[in-house]
Amino acid sequence: MLRKNDIADWLMGLQDRICASLEGLDGTDHFHEDAWQREGGGGGRTRIIQGKHIEKGGVNFSAVEGELSPNLQKALGVADSSFFATGVSIVLHPSNPMVPIIHMNVRYFETGPDSWWFGGGIDVTPHYVFAEDARGFHQLLKAVCDQHHQDYYQEFKKWADDYFYIKHRKETRGIGGIFFDKLDASRGSKEDLFAFLKDVGEAFVPAYTALFSKHYQEAFTEAHREWQLLRRGRYVEFNLVWDRGTKFGLDTDGRIESILMSLPRDVRWYYDHRPEESSPEAETLRHLVKGIDWLHN
Amino acid sequence: MLRKNDIADWLMGLQDRICASLEGLDGTDHFHEDAWQREGGGGGRTRIIQGKHIEKGGVNFSAVEGELSPNLQKALGVADSSFFATGVSIVLHPSNPMVPIIHMNVRYFETGPDSWWFGGGIDVTPHYVFAEDARGFHQLLKAVCDQHHQDYYQEFKKWADDYFYIKHRKETRGIGGIFFDKLDASRGSKEDLFAFLKDVGEAFVPAYTALFSKHYQEAFTEAHREWQLLRRGRYVEFNLVWDRGTKFGLDTDGRIESILMSLPRDVRWYYDHRPEESSPEAETLRHLVKGIDWLHN
Repeated sequence: MLRKNDIADWLMGLQDRICASLEGLDGTDHFHEDAWQREGGGGGRTRIIQGKHIEKGGVNFSAVEGELSPNLQKALGVADSSFFATGVSIVLHPSNPMVPIIHMNVRYFETGPDSWWFGGGIDVTPHYVFAEDARGFHQLLKAVCDQHHQDYYQEFKKWADDYFYIKHRKETRGIGGIFFDKLDASRGSKEDLFAFLKDVGEAFVPAYTALFSKHYQEAFTEAHREWQLLRRGRYVEFNLVWDRGTKFGLDTDGRIESILMSLPRDVRWYYDHRPEESSPEAETLRHLVKGIDWLHN
Repeated sequence: MLRKNDIADWLMGLQDRICASLEGLDGTDHFHEDAWQREGGGGGRTRIIQGKHIEKGGVNFSAVEGELSPNLQKALGVADSSFFATGVSIVLHPSNPMVPIIHMNVRYFETGPDSWWFGGGIDVTPHYVFAEDARGFHQLLKAVCDQHHQDYYQEFKKWADDYFYIKHRKETRGIGGIFFDKLDASRGSKEDLFAFLKDVGEAFVPAYTALFSKHYQEAFTEAHREWQLLRRGRYVEFNLVWDRGTKFGLDTDGRIESILMSLPRDVRWYYDHRPEESSPEAETLRHLVKGIDWLHN
């Protein structure tokens, strides 16, 4: 029988493995760790890297427990007020504009022996969209999904398109990936769903390594850098205005620095910036829409 | 009898006068205007300056009308579904970190002959708090308020403290100012309240001129500039997470570039940045709390 602590232990190990791999990729900095305790119960390990190639990145683990407020109980639609939640969250902002921003989250939630679910996903936000990279990334995710259910990739790919959408800009945050939530007993046994979650978690390093290694030493101009800063502005807009995880954290008095580690270091906003027609920047914008079949694009 | 178009006309004139004054202050750039039409009715004039001393600033006028959605009608607590709204909104991000960010808004709303109100306010967000500047600014606002009602300054100063509060940081956005909303017939005649609104609007130029002229040529270091970028990060957090005006605009499909003109050009986030004890930066943080009596601080 799979216990919540088994899941938390595995996630903690995942955090360790991912941090070790990322330190290897960047090669110039180590993660700085802040271990923290939550007043209501539990705590976490926030790890931050600020290297030459990963300009600002966070790999967070947390396992918290306590009592849900009546409002939260209602929002989550659960009967029990006691809860346990554990997860690993990652956001990496690279220095090189040709390397995309990447985000991953894998999490487990329970409010009683019979009420539990898994959630998570991986998605990338390129400053410049390269069709070949997007194809490779989605192929990898599809392979992970296909091992568990033939419908997972299509379903969770669409979910990512819908979730990572900057409504006020009418733009997707990037080229998506997969996103899923509330995978519960109606979807499979806890063991099977955990096996899926593990495979998603383990896909992070190969997925990012492919994108990072290909581009991190690529030459770029001031104009590329500026476009990167502007695209980061969109990332900030999504995370502060629309992201439910951020909202949940801010509303429930979570550890602010761990929640907002997702924000980039340097960001820029211009009034009404529009890239030149047919420029690589305009091409990228053209790809920030829902429903692209990246496998055959 | 005061008609809605009289109010809109006066606000348009205010925009012109303020823009002319700001061009004089900056001395290096003119406002660029985008006139826009709203599908549902009405439109506006968004004016942007990107000068040497005002790094990024917007002075917007709009006068829009149409139908409220049932949700909005409920949120506003009004019986009529047709509405008219007009206002001037300003946010200026200066280049010099010793000059504060300033914000002003004056607006009028009606949903029928018997349902109307005024709202608005002025507040400043210093990157470095100077007690003398804060005193002068609040004295000026108090003088404006005192001409209309002996309780306005205290009431609207508190309202600003409560409104411009970055809840997740437990920090005020700056040293406040005045904020008021739904000033309706229960508060005075439409003529009297409009007279108050006019005085608030006309106070903008002297208030900003005092702060700008004193500091815009002051020497500053890279460290000052960096602190400015970090404080701008807080400004972004407030505007995207908490500001009801921004939320309203994004929810109602407003003109995005006009709404988000409030965002600074260059911004920075560090993970868990903490200024050195007793530094000017730490002193500034110490003053970002509610309830300071700036007149006697």
